[in-house]
Amino acid sequence: MPALRFEVLATDPNSAARRGRLTTPHGVIETPVFMPVGTQATVKTLSPHEVWDLGARIILSNTYHLYLRPGADLIREAGGLHRFMAWPGSILTDSGGFQVFSLAELRKITEEGVQFRSHLDGSSHFLSPETAIQVQNALGADIIMCFDECTPWPVEYEYAKASMERTARWAARCKAAHARPDDQALFGIVQGSTYADLRRESAARTVELDFPGYAVGGLSVGEPKALMHEMLEITVPLLPPDRPRYLMGVGSPEDLIEGVWRGIDMFDCVLPTRIARHGTVFTRRGKLSVRSAAFARDWEPIEPGCDCYACRHFSRAYIRHLFKAEEMLGLRLASLHNLRFLLRLMEEVRQALETGTFAEYRRAFYAEWGQGSDEGNTVPEPADPANR
Amino acid sequence: MPALRFEVLATDPNSAARRGRLTTPHGVIETPVFMPVGTQATVKTLSPHEVWDLGARIILSNTYHLYLRPGADLIREAGGLHRFMAWPGSILTDSGGFQVFSLAELRKITEEGVQFRSHLDGSSHFLSPETAIQVQNALGADIIMCFDECTPWPVEYEYAKASMERTARWAARCKAAHARPDDQALFGIVQGSTYADLRRESAARTVELDFPGYAVGGLSVGEPKALMHEMLEITVPLLPPDRPRYLMGVGSPEDLIEGVWRGIDMFDCVLPTRIARHGTVFTRRGKLSVRSAAFARDWEPIEPGCDCYACRHFSRAYIRHLFKAEEMLGLRLASLHNLRFLLRLMEEVRQALETGTFAEYRRAFYAEWGQGSDEGNTVPEPADPANR
Repeated sequence: MPALRFEVLATDPNSAARRGRLTTPHGVIETPVFMPVGTQATVKTLSPHEVWDLGARIILSNTYHLYLRPGADLIREAGGLHRFMAWPGSILTDSGGFQVFSLAELRKITEEGVQFRSHLDGSSHFLSPETAIQVQNALGADIIMCFDECTPWPVEYEYAKASMERTARWAARCKAAHARPDDQALFGIVQGSTYADLRRESAARTVELDFPGYAVGGLSVGEPKALMHEMLEITVPLLPPDRPRYLMGVGSPEDLIEGVWRGIDMFDCVLPTRIARHGTVFTRRGKLSVRSAAFARDWEPIEPGCDCYACRHFSRAYIRHLFKAEEMLGLRLASLHNLRFLLRLMEEVRQALETGTFAEYRRAFYAEWGQGSDEGNTVPEPADPANR
Repeated sequence: MPALRFEVLATDPNSAARRGRLTTPHGVIETPVFMPVGTQATVKTLSPHEVWDLGARIILSNTYHLYLRPGADLIREAGGLHRFMAWPGSILTDSGGFQVFSLAELRKITEEGVQFRSHLDGSSHFLSPETAIQVQNALGADIIMCFDECTPWPVEYEYAKASMERTARWAARCKAAHARPDDQALFGIVQGSTYADLRRESAARTVELDFPGYAVGGLSVGEPKALMHEMLEITVPLLPPDRPRYLMGVGSPEDLIEGVWRGIDMFDCVLPTRIARHGTVFTRRGKLSVRSAAFARDWEPIEPGCDCYACRHFSRAYIRHLFKAEEMLGLRLASLHNLRFLLRLMEEVRQALETGTFAEYRRAFYAEWGQGSDEGNTVPEPADPANR
């Protein structure tokens, strides 16, 4: 039996969007889906059961971080990542490529792989397609990823082409190295930066290897939104319709809506939990800073009508107090709210796809979004690219 | 109807211990009871519903901190502290005296009250018996405390005597200033340092004022345990048996057992949550540091058989990983465990008192306690006395 089953339950009459269902050894995932990120075997500030209660059924964890600490052998000995962190649902691990390539001066790339120094202690390590898969086999996630290079943006055409070709060669090596295909589904990754012909070639070369799912990588790395959309419109139609499609490292509420519109089934991003820890929360009208003095005596919840734990029990004034007083419960409440916001958005998107009303849903979303945005409160840039 | 009802349900044949029941406007509290501390309107790292699920029915919150931030008016406007922090149970607030007197160079004492500077921004404030009660009336806790001086240890007899006499005069002013006796029970506080005659005089002068409950203050401030026990043995018999007795700022598992033995009904301390945030956890055999390298591959829970969330789901190895990786879930799990440890200890103490077996329970506790103590891991000293 394959490690992954994917069914398309409905397609949208007005877009490339589809409503689907993924089945992994750890359960059923309704798509389109947003995957919360648990970098170090924990979704920051939250317990696994809280994440489950938010409605998440799959989370992402980072191979680079877990490889360095506590180490893949230790997690294998624990019975795998699910058991180690007591997560009852499914897990997807990235390959470590994104973080390793982000280390800049700390890494050296060859055809064989990447030599790099740990951001924790400077110790020297080597990740190759084979070792990245070995580590992911030890971690035991339901979905694992090929070791690729996520090129920065902008990047020279020649570099993007050479990198994309290496990523394609590495994909073949990853597939050959994969020791647990019956337990873990290995996804291929399409690269090619924002060059249309490279995207097409990358899609063709990756699909040729016949993976159970495909990711679109190298987007949402600083390029204009229009270019991201164009690349999706070029790439997605070249991917087999019976396989899940995953847009890596995305994103914001708008990016999720636009990704689904263009045929994406899966998303992940640290955005909701990272901005939460800075006191920024999502509402249907835009982002707000709960630290704002305007909320000092605001007895409304973050978002009236929201069904999250924070909104059911606490006022903006209380949450503002927690942030001012540097109390951890504030970070927890904002994290719960932001994750619930995106998970609920995706619930609604799935419902709209079931009833053939996604175009109307998208219009209604934009009619509200940004109306109450707190302009002074821009999303903080990631401080450390290795920590995306 | 009085704000507080107290019934003694059983007394111990071998000691001064008693099994009781407190009823406040916010519910029933079985005694002897340990009250978790929520200094800034939150028990650090935990949600109020987690604290409730641990079995806590009353928590302590600090007037000094809430007076400075977010301010008593704001909390009154929120509908009181219970509603502000969404705590479904009872609350006791201290008077702010302990913190204000701890400020050392930042405060000046007169008969009228204490002039002090905020540890947050250096701003100047004045707390007197009257204002301390006004603030506590605004916060709206079920049990509030007289504004007293908790003398440091050791302290000169003359200072201790003058301070105790001032505390007694202030107690009368507190009682006169109390504007909500039907909603909030005001407790008197016995001081007198470790001088037997001063303790006796303080008890007599405080009891004369006829409070619905009495606290023993000024202990567990550095004096030898034997002196603390002696002071309890002198003080408690002078307090009316039909009123609850509260030993302030105590304590450790042994201190709870010994306090109950000497007739104490209520305890509070930051110890369990503070040491948790340093990675130190209670077990029946003593304290352990979950950061210890010995636990890197230890797949047992913190304490086998413990019914807390941390012990039901996570290994020592995982919790150690969380501490090493500086993930907040580690602080949460250790805090949950330590609070549950003390709350469960008190559940067992109450059961032993009901069955007349407290002496045996105490012997069995000591037979185990300290057997597996992690000697290298002493409890960290409070960094900031204002934060006890």
